[in-house]
Amino acid sequence: MTDSANSPAKPPNLTDIQDASQRIADHIYRTPLIECDRLSQQLGVSLRFKPESLQHEGSFKIRGATNAVLCLPETLARNGVIAHSSGNHAAALARAAMQRSIPAAIVMPHNSSPRKLNAVRQLGIEPHLCEPSSEEREKATERLIQSTKATLIHAYDDPNVIAGQGTVGLEIIEQVDQVDSIFVPVGGGGLLSGVLIAVKTLRPEVKIYGCEPNLADDAYRSLKAGKRLMPTRYDSIADGLRTALGLTTFPVIHRLVDDILLVDEHEIQSATRLLAETAGLVAEPSGAVTLAALKRHRERFQGDSVVAVISGGNIEMSRCQLGRLPSD
Amino acid sequence: MTDSANSPAKPPNLTDIQDASQRIADHIYRTPLIECDRLSQQLGVSLRFKPESLQHEGSFKIRGATNAVLCLPETLARNGVIAHSSGNHAAALARAAMQRSIPAAIVMPHNSSPRKLNAVRQLGIEPHLCEPSSEEREKATERLIQSTKATLIHAYDDPNVIAGQGTVGLEIIEQVDQVDSIFVPVGGGGLLSGVLIAVKTLRPEVKIYGCEPNLADDAYRSLKAGKRLMPTRYDSIADGLRTALGLTTFPVIHRLVDDILLVDEHEIQSATRLLAETAGLVAEPSGAVTLAALKRHRERFQGDSVVAVISGGNIEMSRCQLGRLPSD
Repeated sequence: MTDSANSPAKPPNLTDIQDASQRIADHIYRTPLIECDRLSQQLGVSLRFKPESLQHEGSFKIRGATNAVLCLPETLARNGVIAHSSGNHAAALARAAMQRSIPAAIVMPHNSSPRKLNAVRQLGIEPHLCEPSSEEREKATERLIQSTKATLIHAYDDPNVIAGQGTVGLEIIEQVDQVDSIFVPVGGGGLLSGVLIAVKTLRPEVKIYGCEPNLADDAYRSLKAGKRLMPTRYDSIADGLRTALGLTTFPVIHRLVDDILLVDEHEIQSATRLLAETAGLVAEPSGAVTLAALKRHRERFQGDSVVAVISGGNIEMSRCQLGRLPSD
Repeated sequence: MTDSANSPAKPPNLTDIQDASQRIADHIYRTPLIECDRLSQQLGVSLRFKPESLQHEGSFKIRGATNAVLCLPETLARNGVIAHSSGNHAAALARAAMQRSIPAAIVMPHNSSPRKLNAVRQLGIEPHLCEPSSEEREKATERLIQSTKATLIHAYDDPNVIAGQGTVGLEIIEQVDQVDSIFVPVGGGGLLSGVLIAVKTLRPEVKIYGCEPNLADDAYRSLKAGKRLMPTRYDSIADGLRTALGLTTFPVIHRLVDDILLVDEHEIQSATRLLAETAGLVAEPSGAVTLAALKRHRERFQGDSVVAVISGGNIEMSRCQLGRLPSD
């Protein structure tokens, strides 16, 4: 989703995130923390990954979507939910609705990746296709809301969604004894703001870094300017991070984040490969941006205990040759 | 390693495997069990992976190598250890020796994959290169043993190695409440025999299946014939499974395994891709053979709770395009 909600909402607090954690426990995987000795040595840190690539539908988005769906009162829920998304939020909301046995309408640009379209279809929902512009997406969504009375669940600028994503931070704190720094990808800021609220409340001494492509550096510029700025282009390889911060997520990030770390496109691509070849984990480029940032800025983190969140693993591998057949 | 030890040894028992588990605990990762809802639904089973691809050096081999090295009495250990291997045992033994601060000599065919050679070099050991034939490998190894008095650690036909690999089975039983079937790749049979001894002693009702390429079906034929037969070709995409069963591993497998499941080369390649695209896990073809076997033989396992061991993840990905750069 490229646009934000219309007005800022009150962000969740630690209790909201803890409640979300209970609420969604039966619907999500508690992803493990994965150590990687080889990368730790290579980078001079003690490195662990939080691979939400191993999550249902291959990304953290199921946490926020499930929490938001489960928070709906029955009178609203029965009319269903709606999302417009070209990314991981689409399948996440479709699955969350399926779990509650309520209808879901998903508006997707007709040029969305076949993989993302199929993920929604495999959950038994035919996406409503629209033109790719924000305007057309919103028009299509508005029409569907009018006709169905369904509730729009925003991909990141919604307190219940942020609370759900914040459970990633809660789990990290529970799973590791000692952590100095947590690296989190930043697109719309739902994941980053949720992790910030959870971790900075429980363990204020832990540093938290947002990681962002140079080509989608709106969070970096927004924090410098002290106000929410828009992206200037939308073509980073990290397609999940091309969005602007939300009205609700921006103030949280502005108040709590330690820094935004920027990386270039080749660094993201190379980190994606490094994760697969060295750590055995498939990440989408948006998920590998944290390893890319650690690698680029490693002098600042020597000797630290670092957790890098891999936000998702939905990547097309059809152009990959994995092993050589006898006939090749 | 393509050849076996010269004579059968007494296989380990459950206590040996439990002792191994204690002995190696500080040196290995206890790999998580990873659920995959999407594949479970697709295949009509409740599926979990045991991804040894996330293990140190990217394979289960570190378990057996570490146990064997730690079992050596000090008088022998100080002369070091030696392996001949073109695969994952090479780096595993190099790392195990490094952990005990003893020398290791690794004999590798000069045509080993650059990745496998580099893995050993990155541990600070320069491999001794030899001609690829079994004869030449053994000659080179024999010469080194003569000059160094080092102890040969066989890749699979060694009771301490088998005991180490058996810890995979122990962990599975501890990590999952209910399991009907465990799928294990079979090459030389070290992993399969270790898992069989551990699991069939603790939970005799659990079925265990060895999974093997059609092009390397020596375990299948050996069990049918009731005697150890050699592979007839050595070109399966699953390069870790091209070896013959060992003198020590064969009788264990013959006595305890429920069946050997065969798969063809395209099924292995397609399972490797499916694991990456759907489960977020990088497997080498030898590791993906278990998913391939489950997929091919799924009618037999409908409704079962299945654990598929992914034995390793060391695969060359340089020919993979992971994400599209703006300039592409």
